[in-house]
Amino acid sequence: MKAARITVYDTTLRDGAQAEGVSFTVAGKIKMALRLDAFGVDYIEGGYAGSNQKDMDFFSAIRKYPLKRSRIVAFGSTRRAGRKVRDDSLLQSLLAAQTGAVTIFGKAWILHVRDVLRTTPRENLAMISDTVAYLKDCGREVFFDAEHFFDGYKADASYAMAALEAAVRAGADAVVLCDTNGGALPAEIYEATRAVVRALRVPVGIHVHNDGGMAVANTVEAVRAGAVHVQGTVNGIGERCGNADLCAVLPSLEFKMGLQTVGREALRGLKDLSVFADTILNRRPDSRAPYVGQSAFSHKAGPHVDAVNKNPRSFEHVKPEDVGNRRRVLVSELSGGTSVLLKAIELGVGRAGARKDEMRQVLAALKRMEAKGYAFEAADGSFKILVQKALKQHRPFFDLEGFRVIVEKRGKRQRCVSEATVKVRVKGEREQTAADGDGPVNALDRALRKALTRFYPEINTVSLADFRVSILDPEEATAAKTRVIIESTDGEETWGTVGVSGNIIEASWEALVDSVEYKLFKEEERRKNGGGRKVPAAGDNNGADVRSEGS
Amino acid sequence: MKAARITVYDTTLRDGAQAEGVSFTVAGKIKMALRLDAFGVDYIEGGYAGSNQKDMDFFSAIRKYPLKRSRIVAFGSTRRAGRKVRDDSLLQSLLAAQTGAVTIFGKAWILHVRDVLRTTPRENLAMISDTVAYLKDCGREVFFDAEHFFDGYKADASYAMAALEAAVRAGADAVVLCDTNGGALPAEIYEATRAVVRALRVPVGIHVHNDGGMAVANTVEAVRAGAVHVQGTVNGIGERCGNADLCAVLPSLEFKMGLQTVGREALRGLKDLSVFADTILNRRPDSRAPYVGQSAFSHKAGPHVDAVNKNPRSFEHVKPEDVGNRRRVLVSELSGGTSVLLKAIELGVGRAGARKDEMRQVLAALKRMEAKGYAFEAADGSFKILVQKALKQHRPFFDLEGFRVIVEKRGKRQRCVSEATVKVRVKGEREQTAADGDGPVNALDRALRKALTRFYPEINTVSLADFRVSILDPEEATAAKTRVIIESTDGEETWGTVGVSGNIIEASWEALVDSVEYKLFKEEERRKNGGGRKVPAAGDNNGADVRSEGS
Repeated sequence: MKAARITVYDTTLRDGAQAEGVSFTVAGKIKMALRLDAFGVDYIEGGYAGSNQKDMDFFSAIRKYPLKRSRIVAFGSTRRAGRKVRDDSLLQSLLAAQTGAVTIFGKAWILHVRDVLRTTPRENLAMISDTVAYLKDCGREVFFDAEHFFDGYKADASYAMAALEAAVRAGADAVVLCDTNGGALPAEIYEATRAVVRALRVPVGIHVHNDGGMAVANTVEAVRAGAVHVQGTVNGIGERCGNADLCAVLPSLEFKMGLQTVGREALRGLKDLSVFADTILNRRPDSRAPYVGQSAFSHKAGPHVDAVNKNPRSFEHVKPEDVGNRRRVLVSELSGGTSVLLKAIELGVGRAGARKDEMRQVLAALKRMEAKGYAFEAADGSFKILVQKALKQHRPFFDLEGFRVIVEKRGKRQRCVSEATVKVRVKGEREQTAADGDGPVNALDRALRKALTRFYPEINTVSLADFRVSILDPEEATAAKTRVIIESTDGEETWGTVGVSGNIIEASWEALVDSVEYKLFKEEERRKNGGGRKVPAAGDNNGADVRSEGS
Repeated sequence: MKAARITVYDTTLRDGAQAEGVSFTVAGKIKMALRLDAFGVDYIEGGYAGSNQKDMDFFSAIRKYPLKRSRIVAFGSTRRAGRKVRDDSLLQSLLAAQTGAVTIFGKAWILHVRDVLRTTPRENLAMISDTVAYLKDCGREVFFDAEHFFDGYKADASYAMAALEAAVRAGADAVVLCDTNGGALPAEIYEATRAVVRALRVPVGIHVHNDGGMAVANTVEAVRAGAVHVQGTVNGIGERCGNADLCAVLPSLEFKMGLQTVGREALRGLKDLSVFADTILNRRPDSRAPYVGQSAFSHKAGPHVDAVNKNPRSFEHVKPEDVGNRRRVLVSELSGGTSVLLKAIELGVGRAGARKDEMRQVLAALKRMEAKGYAFEAADGSFKILVQKALKQHRPFFDLEGFRVIVEKRGKRQRCVSEATVKVRVKGEREQTAADGDGPVNALDRALRKALTRFYPEINTVSLADFRVSILDPEEATAAKTRVIIESTDGEETWGTVGVSGNIIEASWEALVDSVEYKLFKEEERRKNGGGRKVPAAGDNNGADVRSEGS
């Protein structure tokens, strides 16, 4: 039996662009549209025709690209009250967008007709039918967005239905029920949608906002009630609390309700699509986003890791790879021996046959460090060193005799300069160096490398990629403990390290030392193995699979 | 008619602590528990007894605090297979936590019994009933968390029900249906919950995860089906994609379903509770969180603003002030002038009759600073100084000639010491001081006050209450820009100040200077006004409304 087909209508470029802090360039819109087409959505709402030049530029530019599958849609409103369709400049812009499909929104809530439009219920219906009929005459595929449909239905069901019927009689190809304020409950959505599906002969769509935190569920409930067209945005971006997140809606429809949307093959690219949109918009990805977030298949608690190892279904609602995501094991004080062992093997420092008491030593060391404020989830490099230390496999590549950092602000121009000196003992020799830097940690980093480079030239390939600071007890103010996490890269892999101290400079120093030791250890292993075999890379494992046999 | 009462069970400190990147200190747990008690939740699940020392320390520490309303709950599992309850060390830890209530989780899914516990269906039921009976004998209020209930119900409804019945027969005070994998659909939750509510005579609770993005809706649907006890976490923190977010669940139950949870008065503190939890955990607040996010009631300029002005209901599903949030209008440059003016008046530095060009100067200065990375939302103190500078009303209380900070680590014990020297010119005199500190910023803070105290003894009442660091361009690593926000208090009010620099010490210095100037200006104003009238306090205005006339 063929699965029922649900039309996927993306409005990232229009409703998504209403989100606070979101702003597309025309080039960004083009890229996003091409990506959505490749992913396989049916419709791409490109912008609000006539509302700004950028959207009109997009409609004109996108015509040059042959799309594989998606149809571009221009969005606009019904004609204004008391105006003729032909004289309405916004409607003329909608046509000027030259898209095959258009969506117009109209009022379905009597409160809006009265208080916002300030016109009569009758004129509002005429505005809807005149506009739909005109656009059909102009050869467009026409969708009618019934704005505030669910609030309108609660206030006056027969008027809300009349608005839909006006659109249908005028020839609308589909009507879309909107929860514009985003506050409807799932049961309300289900009931109203079912009533509409039963009453009308055209396809019914759903467009909801997330103000109650229920946009995904409301979309799913509307589909259960018979809606066959879903609207939403990538990552749920949109005004206020966002729109329905297509990254959560589509896999639920496809994997849990047995419906067809973009297809299972395309869904394997879901996480990539999500990352792509965040990258274009320079948004920080939401690590706990359903299906596509970095944490979505991360297991931290000891028993969970253990169970997932025995049977993935035991703690995973879908297979991570089906949505292009991966399973991750996190180590923390909540971890049991199994996760620590798995992680250690991943990092090349554990052995599958490790003795139980060894792993208990590692776990005890981990708990001791975490109690002091260390955190290893984003610091695989430091975790590896911790394991080596606990197993007495660690040997330092150098000994610190001392460092000094000076930050000084003075003189006419009041420039702030930082200088660090570092004294270390390496292979029996003492080395003392100094370096300036942009800030104290940068100076310290430079001085340390300068001191080591004669002995270990390979550290010249390492650079710092990220630097994060958390204050652990903010209430103790500047005397609080500071946790520094550093991400380093040698172009081949990246690794995280952590330091904790009451002194931010000392915390940074710890993380810097771990970073260097991680690199030196890796190179030493490589040499031992004849340079051929690559040592397992912590960076590659930042989010790597530790798959159980059953997965 | 009195609204039906729903029991609110918070598990932020237990299940929330499973979230990636979340780690509570014992002190943080105590603070959060006291805050939850003040907010009015019924139960606070404090931790997993026996799994780690921190949670046991919490249970022991919290006993010293008299709670107003909440009952502390210890969490643990049923006895192990083939073990006697009295010999089970985890159960003994659960009792050692000495809480009035305990929650134990047990398996309701045959797959877990077989593949994870690796025991018989019959022994699993005995584990549940033995454990519940034992804990009841020990005088505890006992909740039974039926782990994976919904998956179990789908696979084998009669076995899932048998697990619940085993708990009920043994005396459980309530059974809690868990969607542990977080992938259930709302309709599944509704149907299964309704069946349980009809079959059992004890209160039924609901505990769901957010892997499908439907945790809030699923909780609401369970309540509609008859559940009377809801579990969740503040801000929805929790493993993988999180738990049901109480900040979204509670207002939906209270305002939309006519049920009573913590009560409407308490809900006015909802946003504050959300911010408090993020602050304790040093988490970045989710601006688009339903109800409590900064964007939740934000309207971009244009038709929405216009409509909200005509009738707030037209684009708002609830009143922002009912959940302690506020409406924000994301403004154009012109209306921006109005908001800046209102804010300046609030802080006592603007005049109602301020000229338009003055406000434009302030706005231009604000934009210039924000482009450099400054942020004033949590830094009213610095904003006030910015306004004074832009309006040429600012005069410095001292001039910096220079500072120097030295951080040194050396000697046998490798202690890290920080020393700061500060040279300032005050009222024509030069003052040079030095001070040690716990870390460079603390040393700088002490040296600065020492230098000023002879001239301005009032600064001795000021202490730093909070210190936060953000890295603005993490990809530039240690050479990135750093934003430091400091919160100061003089016991009477608190105020925030901000500094930005490529050098963390210089950024901290800027924020320290603003903090001192804010205090000195305040005292000067007070003296001018005869010491009677209190100058408006920036701290009190942290988050103050700038309401439009229509709201």
